[in-house]
Amino acid sequence: MRFEEAYSGNVFINSHPDFENSEAVIYGMPMDWTVSYRPGSRFGPTRIREVSIGLEEYSAYLDRELEEVKYYDAGDIPLPFGNAQRSLDLIEEFVDEILDAGKFPLGIGGEHLVSWPVMKSVYKKYPDLAIIHMDAHADLRESYEGEPLSHSTPIRKISEHIGPEHVYSFGIRSGMKEEFQWAKEHGMHISKFEVLEPLKKVLPKLAGRPVYVTLDIDVLDPAHAPGTGTVDAGGITSKELLASIHEIAKSDIKVVGCDLVEVAPIYDVSEQTANTASKLIREMILGWVQKR
Amino acid sequence: MRFEEAYSGNVFINSHPDFENSEAVIYGMPMDWTVSYRPGSRFGPTRIREVSIGLEEYSAYLDRELEEVKYYDAGDIPLPFGNAQRSLDLIEEFVDEILDAGKFPLGIGGEHLVSWPVMKSVYKKYPDLAIIHMDAHADLRESYEGEPLSHSTPIRKISEHIGPEHVYSFGIRSGMKEEFQWAKEHGMHISKFEVLEPLKKVLPKLAGRPVYVTLDIDVLDPAHAPGTGTVDAGGITSKELLASIHEIAKSDIKVVGCDLVEVAPIYDVSEQTANTASKLIREMILGWVQKR
Amino acid sequence: MRFEEAYSGNVFINSHPDFENSEAVIYGMPMDWTVSYRPGSRFGPTRIREVSIGLEEYSAYLDRELEEVKYYDAGDIPLPFGNAQRSLDLIEEFVDEILDAGKFPLGIGGEHLVSWPVMKSVYKKYPDLAIIHMDAHADLRESYEGEPLSHSTPIRKISEHIGPEHVYSFGIRSGMKEEFQWAKEHGMHISKFEVLEPLKKVLPKLAGRPVYVTLDIDVLDPAHAPGTGTVDAGGITSKELLASIHEIAKSDIKVVGCDLVEVAPIYDVSEQTANTASKLIREMILGWVQKR
Amino acid sequence: MRFEEAYSGNVFINSHPDFENSEAVIYGMPMDWTVSYRPGSRFGPTRIREVSIGLEEYSAYLDRELEEVKYYDAGDIPLPFGNAQRSLDLIEEFVDEILDAGKFPLGIGGEHLVSWPVMKSVYKKYPDLAIIHMDAHADLRESYEGEPLSHSTPIRKISEHIGPEHVYSFGIRSGMKEEFQWAKEHGMHISKFEVLEPLKKVLPKLAGRPVYVTLDIDVLDPAHAPGTGTVDAGGITSKELLASIHEIAKSDIKVVGCDLVEVAPIYDVSEQTANTASKLIREMILGWVQKR
Amino acid sequence: MRFEEAYSGNVFINSHPDFENSEAVIYGMPMDWTVSYRPGSRFGPTRIREVSIGLEEYSAYLDRELEEVKYYDAGDIPLPFGNAQRSLDLIEEFVDEILDAGKFPLGIGGEHLVSWPVMKSVYKKYPDLAIIHMDAHADLRESYEGEPLSHSTPIRKISEHIGPEHVYSFGIRSGMKEEFQWAKEHGMHISKFEVLEPLKKVLPKLAGRPVYVTLDIDVLDPAHAPGTGTVDAGGITSKELLASIHEIAKSDIKVVGCDLVEVAPIYDVSEQTANTASKLIREMILGWVQKR
Amino acid sequence: MRFEEAYSGNVFINSHPDFENSEAVIYGMPMDWTVSYRPGSRFGPTRIREVSIGLEEYSAYLDRELEEVKYYDAGDIPLPFGNAQRSLDLIEEFVDEILDAGKFPLGIGGEHLVSWPVMKSVYKKYPDLAIIHMDAHADLRESYEGEPLSHSTPIRKISEHIGPEHVYSFGIRSGMKEEFQWAKEHGMHISKFEVLEPLKKVLPKLAGRPVYVTLDIDVLDPAHAPGTGTVDAGGITSKELLASIHEIAKSDIKVVGCDLVEVAPIYDVSEQTANTASKLIREMILGWVQKR
Repeated sequence: MRFEEAYSGNVFINSHPDFENSEAVIYGMPMDWTVSYRPGSRFGPTRIREVSIGLEEYSAYLDRELEEVKYYDAGDIPLPFGNAQRSLDLIEEFVDEILDAGKFPLGIGGEHLVSWPVMKSVYKKYPDLAIIHMDAHADLRESYEGEPLSHSTPIRKISEHIGPEHVYSFGIRSGMKEEFQWAKEHGMHISKFEVLEPLKKVLPKLAGRPVYVTLDIDVLDPAHAPGTGTVDAGGITSKELLASIHEIAKSDIKVVGCDLVEVAPIYDVSEQTANTASKLIREMILGWVQKR
Repeated sequence: MRFEEAYSGNVFINSHPDFENSEAVIYGMPMDWTVSYRPGSRFGPTRIREVSIGLEEYSAYLDRELEEVKYYDAGDIPLPFGNAQRSLDLIEEFVDEILDAGKFPLGIGGEHLVSWPVMKSVYKKYPDLAIIHMDAHADLRESYEGEPLSHSTPIRKISEHIGPEHVYSFGIRSGMKEEFQWAKEHGMHISKFEVLEPLKKVLPKLAGRPVYVTLDIDVLDPAHAPGTGTVDAGGITSKELLASIHEIAKSDIKVVGCDLVEVAPIYDVSEQTANTASKLIREMILGWVQKR
Repeated sequence: MRFEEAYSGNVFINSHPDFENSEAVIYGMPMDWTVSYRPGSRFGPTRIREVSIGLEEYSAYLDRELEEVKYYDAGDIPLPFGNAQRSLDLIEEFVDEILDAGKFPLGIGGEHLVSWPVMKSVYKKYPDLAIIHMDAHADLRESYEGEPLSHSTPIRKISEHIGPEHVYSFGIRSGMKEEFQWAKEHGMHISKFEVLEPLKKVLPKLAGRPVYVTLDIDVLDPAHAPGTGTVDAGGITSKELLASIHEIAKSDIKVVGCDLVEVAPIYDVSEQTANTASKLIREMILGWVQKR
Repeated sequence: MRFEEAYSGNVFINSHPDFENSEAVIYGMPMDWTVSYRPGSRFGPTRIREVSIGLEEYSAYLDRELEEVKYYDAGDIPLPFGNAQRSLDLIEEFVDEILDAGKFPLGIGGEHLVSWPVMKSVYKKYPDLAIIHMDAHADLRESYEGEPLSHSTPIRKISEHIGPEHVYSFGIRSGMKEEFQWAKEHGMHISKFEVLEPLKKVLPKLAGRPVYVTLDIDVLDPAHAPGTGTVDAGGITSKELLASIHEIAKSDIKVVGCDLVEVAPIYDVSEQTANTASKLIREMILGWVQKR
Repeated sequence: MRFEEAYSGNVFINSHPDFENSEAVIYGMPMDWTVSYRPGSRFGPTRIREVSIGLEEYSAYLDRELEEVKYYDAGDIPLPFGNAQRSLDLIEEFVDEILDAGKFPLGIGGEHLVSWPVMKSVYKKYPDLAIIHMDAHADLRESYEGEPLSHSTPIRKISEHIGPEHVYSFGIRSGMKEEFQWAKEHGMHISKFEVLEPLKKVLPKLAGRPVYVTLDIDVLDPAHAPGTGTVDAGGITSKELLASIHEIAKSDIKVVGCDLVEVAPIYDVSEQTANTASKLIREMILGWVQKR
Repeated sequence: MRFEEAYSGNVFINSHPDFENSEAVIYGMPMDWTVSYRPGSRFGPTRIREVSIGLEEYSAYLDRELEEVKYYDAGDIPLPFGNAQRSLDLIEEFVDEILDAGKFPLGIGGEHLVSWPVMKSVYKKYPDLAIIHMDAHADLRESYEGEPLSHSTPIRKISEHIGPEHVYSFGIRSGMKEEFQWAKEHGMHISKFEVLEPLKKVLPKLAGRPVYVTLDIDVLDPAHAPGTGTVDAGGITSKELLASIHEIAKSDIKVVGCDLVEVAPIYDVSEQTANTASKLIREMILGWVQKR
């Protein structure tokens, strides 16, 4: 046996060792310092990679195998604890590089605020960008207790940045009254409670457009994703979420990047949420990366 | 900052500090001494309050905010460990006071036996009372291994007290053969396995009547409520339970009190059940208290 | 009180103390040495028995009580740690004895490989045997990393042994591409993702035949069965699984043995999976044993 | 293999199958209904037996093997949930029988109140009885919140029954002021905080006398026994407790019975406390039973 | 029963309801946003209060009862998530008020950085102040990865503020080489690994002086305090820590305030650490408050 | 930022990226298939690396920093599940390579049987080899239930291979009578219960000799290492174990390789054991590698 054959636990299963020849780049954003309730998602990327060794490399849903896609796992971006602004700047810079190299960025959070600099970066490359957002929470606050950098604000920020009419939220079951009002008044799409059926109606409208998909794991019911900071009853099943990923894969939109955020291993005692996240990422890779 | 501004962790989120001007009263009944399987629900009320700080104060289902209802959190009734009869007497006395003051009682258990003195008290005020009962278990035993004070008896007791024809059980999937037979022979309503659809049929019949709703968290499937003493597979989802609460809110019945029982934090490792319970209580407050 | 009245915690609730007069025999197969991901199912049989004391002895689904069936709990087969071949031999020998005595074998795993010698034994007695297999995984590998004795191979082994056309798999959502191809090419039945609806179509075809049912608990979604080695999102609910057991009970097939495998207590922090397994076993006893 | 060879998980390792020819009897007292803080010790006896399979059958401390002593495991006494008085009566009756048969009773709790009827029973047989009590708590209350049947009262009850001067408590670090005063005024021995050193001084005084030893697992520091209802920092190590057991074994007292109480598996997440309890019981068997 | 008699779970056991007549004030500082490893101590104060109901109100060590001291529990200071500077300002302001009212401040963290504004506030009132610091970590960094507001800096900050010669650290077993060098060069006292023995030597030197004691729970070995962010093997026992508290109580120093920080309930699965913390606080109240 | 700066979670903190220029090689042996009680140590190496990011890079004990030693982390050796013989062959081959390259092998288990091929490999290079073994268990069985490849046999195997008089065991508190007898009869050194003091006596005798140190984490008391398969009360503290490592570092022996085995993350709920293991490895690196 040679040393290089030794299994290296830190990369997502079947990652391609070579950045240059990869089509996609997986990267972690281990930040959780602005969360208002239960922290811990900083350890999400590491645990999701760790449990990915339990994944089958073939998708019985898409009839594809991981080896059909080349993706590089760049590890976690080292972020300064407790400094939100600097962390966001580092993330944006990192994703700029991925996009400059022509790769598909697939980010793993961390708290949802990390999606804000990613989407900004993607928008620089795709001015016609639309956002698909799956989440339990509207994340449309301007600030949280006076703090504009909060995990309850990223969708508001990107909506104001690219225009609320380009942002489509699904599965939302929690938020302030003002958030829902703001969405309504500004022409932003919100589907409350459900994901799959409303998504089927929206996808045709986005045909041909570049779309970034941001997925907060808490769109799932706590039964399916207990390992997250803010559990909220009444969510969708993992079956519906898988079907939604496949619906996007079959559609005519062009996914140009995506993320999965808010897995918090410490609340995930049987590692069920991390395992589910790693399966979702497999389906995203197999269903979306080839869409470029 | 002033001392009184300091957050006080023991009350349900957004509780009104003033008893006199409140419409409803939340109170805990930390008793679990008659349970036959796994104890621990005595710590339910404290944990549900604790996690309620993670709740959004607005309901996207009912389009209402908690500040629209004034409710006082009276804390837990101090109950003597291991003495069931004295505990029940203290509870009845406590609820009598709430009702005398014209308030809506919203109780948190504790084991299900605590609902028995509450319902007795409510019945004194509303002789035309009907009961809506959501649970995995029939709770229709006369006694458990010879013990008449048992958490498997409260619905039998109230049925005999107000007449079985005024009691409506939903979601029942567990019980002795004799319990189902007794219900059938005495004209008590039991909907096995399901809640929402049979509830829709029953509610019109109860239009205009005062109704007390007693909710055992184990009516939910263990996937949705692992943190309870007696988990029993095959239950309903939290989505269905939320919809059932909303169905009652939209109906023409007059909810005059309610409780949520059997949350046992020690089995609730990710605090998923306590979080779900706190959301259910929010919906009960917003949907039912105004029904008075 | 007499000594023999003392509760003996190791047997499944309501077990008959006498082997001779029993119709069925429950036995544990505490083996987990070939699993590729997370071990721990060796402790499944003990924990399932332990929590069975929380079970109601009556089934509200089947309107039957456990005392209507006589079953003996034979305890766990002592298996040599780490020696797969010898373990399988011991299991086969053990089940041969049960069948020779004319009893219905009801096995509890342990990893899924334990079902292989059981099915071989049952086939010796019933040459017309068909297999119903419920699982998240196809288990159709020839070997795992060169190892022919692996928990991902039992269905392949039995398929080759009795003919793939006699094997019916349901709920499969994970496997290698080659496994699905092999099934297709060899006329084996695989229903992907779903159990109840496809089962309803298959059962009439099996009318009158002896059938062995092997149930891997991970056919359930991780929400319903977190306590297993290889959790895989997108599974069925415990409601659907219960309904599938009842559908078989109502059908015209003749169940001649069954097993439930892969419960791993260490990942089952609230004991939800073990409790669910014990309920499933109750329904199997009440619904299937009388089918003989 | 024969059926009777199948491992039966419910008995303490190496138990003798035959009551008549046994020198000692192990029995469980699964009661926890009077505890004032965290319940759950009702499941202690079952879990301790379950993990005993991990024990080495030889003691490197005493240079003896379990097969040198014959002990029968009688299972758990079935106790009526929530009825303390009836439970205590059943226990006393049960132990009377063991003693009548000339066996050494080795009880496993359950809460500490179960020791009260046991000690009463032993006293009937040995009027010259002394008690050695190891515990974090004095357990000398007359009642708890008005309730005379409470897990904080057993040592008071036995002290008043046999005379306080015959009761020796060790390791006590918690109690009411009144409890320590009562002990002092009535000539009862209490060694605060420590066990081994004061025990060495007391043992010679008890030479030749029949002694019952009651051991509350919480005499151990929470580091060594997290799995108990009332953890209390500042306790002794398991090394000191083992040495204390051995000190008694080497002494000239005649141990006539013993118990180990208050292991609560639900707080014992890594099963460390149950494993420690099973090792302590092995040492008690090897060190004390032969003292008769 | 009257409503005001209902137990209110959020206050430390036996708290005095009236601020004016209290000698000490307990307050929580639920902040954890600058921690570099595992967050979660924001929930420390709530959980410590919750489990304090399990405490005996009498100390067998000090022979005093809680009712001999009047202390008010002011709840948690509401701190803005993720904004370290504003949080620290609010804490300082809060403690200023306590000191202005002539009360003894007893703070519960939260991460260790919260002690910095507290000590600053205390120093304003007591210019002759000395600090006793018990911790596994030196906490003498100037900044952490460029961030001056970090939980690894508070002792450096206070040392520079009041002069390093007035700061005495005990039990330190972790830190950067530079931290130990800085201490040495600036005349600050550090006792590595041990607490009790070096403390006995230091206390006489501080006789008569006002001293603030800051206690990081991780000075305990992980065996005694698993529920903290940064566990570090090789620490002291809870027995030694209790003895250290009592040693201070017996000394001639004048404790003018204290805190206990870094309890993180999510890592404290059996609630052992929270229970230990609540006992330590009882001893601090009984041993130190009267020293004023 | 450059991609290569991204933190890569799978290596032990501060690992040198370059094999050639390293003095030591860290490698994982993720095997647990022969354990007789609780499996799970296969995930030990990954988790120990993961938590090593929480380590201080400086040792306050040895006054050295990790950057003073160059070590390469080779990842985990890919081992075939359930095939013990092939796994051991692969390990021996792997370590041969490390030794051929002149590096110090530092292995992480996995079950203790993995040390057997490692020690064999080291012995080939150092015919004058002695073994220092710290463990709760003697591991001197010839076989376990007929199976010669078992985790209770490695010390027997190496003793017979290099001569029992060259093997020194410390801390042993568990084993069969026959194991202790065999050791005695064959001149092997066993120190029961204690490590530090007997080690101090043995080290001078080994002065100048090449020594391999194999450390089973369960030599620690369960209080200090709950996260292991076979916990056994009465062990040493982490303080004593650290001191033992330092004693070896100060001695005149020449450590030529070492391992740390049997950490099982699934039983390590607060990650206390993994954190302790990572600290022990830091001290081994700083204290022992330079001994070459």
